[in-house]
Amino acid sequence: MKDLPLPEVYKLLEPGPVVLLTTARRGRHNIMTMSWHMMVDFTPPLIACVVSNGDYSFAALRATKECVIAIPDVSLAEKVVKIGNCSGSDTDKFAEFALTPTRAEKVSAPLIEECFANLECRVTDTRFVNKYGIFILEVVKAWKNPAKFDAKTIHHRGFGTFAVDGEIIHLSSEKP
Amino acid sequence: MKDLPLPEVYKLLEPGPVVLLTTARRGRHNIMTMSWHMMVDFTPPLIACVVSNGDYSFAALRATKECVIAIPDVSLAEKVVKIGNCSGSDTDKFAEFALTPTRAEKVSAPLIEECFANLECRVTDTRFVNKYGIFILEVVKAWKNPAKFDAKTIHHRGFGTFAVDGEIIHLSSEKP
Repeated sequence: MKDLPLPEVYKLLEPGPVVLLTTARRGRHNIMTMSWHMMVDFTPPLIACVVSNGDYSFAALRATKECVIAIPDVSLAEKVVKIGNCSGSDTDKFAEFALTPTRAEKVSAPLIEECFANLECRVTDTRFVNKYGIFILEVVKAWKNPAKFDAKTIHHRGFGTFAVDGEIIHLSSEKP
Repeated sequence: MKDLPLPEVYKLLEPGPVVLLTTARRGRHNIMTMSWHMMVDFTPPLIACVVSNGDYSFAALRATKECVIAIPDVSLAEKVVKIGNCSGSDTDKFAEFALTPTRAEKVSAPLIEECFANLECRVTDTRFVNKYGIFILEVVKAWKNPAKFDAKTIHHRGFGTFAVDGEIIHLSSEKP
């Protein structure tokens, strides 16, 4: 994993890939699958995401105010779905799905080594949590695996159906 | 355009496509290109999106509290980029880009006939607008063009680079 400059982070999330969110609390780490997220600002990178109070990760995220957003490529699709179909309340998901937790630099939540990018995040605003489950996150450190420069991400259409990244097109634009 | 049941709306936005947002105010309609949006709830469908106060659409959206989210397929990619690179302050974008505004049923903002789906939205919460530019929208009516059931959407990676939907995969999942 190499350092990814923070102003580049939006290029990874703006396309809307399914991501994995990790948390750690009282020595237990967990992973959840998440598709409801968006960029809110470029630099520092701010992200909004929805984590329901029905998700096991909710309490850890609210209490620790730290998480990692890990971006899986299509080779992990099956694990991504299975992670989303079980609960951290009774499953050690890193062990169950043979994923490797790696120490992050600035937060206690772990990186996922098998993911091509990892974003260390701090919760900066919880005012929208009670009504909407919306957390505002600031990315404080970002990592990318340079060997996976052509990673194809997956985009969820509901009930396990995904569009995989296909052709990449380049059009002339002055806008980030 | 056929009626799309509201509980199906998330399947269109959760994958993170680039969308077009239309507004209408004082007899003038406008279009902006938008990638910063996410689902917030299934039914009624709630969406969060970021519209900056630097965008010409901002004032119309805040004043009228109505908009349409129109979803273009890849055949419109060039127009989508051009729409994002000019301003409604000096351009009638429907005329300039040969797009057809169609009357919506529940809001004053127009549908875009060339888009394969159109979501009529009302702004239901503006408390996050001043700090983040985040609008909460409720979809009150949704349309889909059944002839374009296999529409390929585009996902923005910055500066006019897009991933186009490729292979569709189906994995077993109990989760919406």
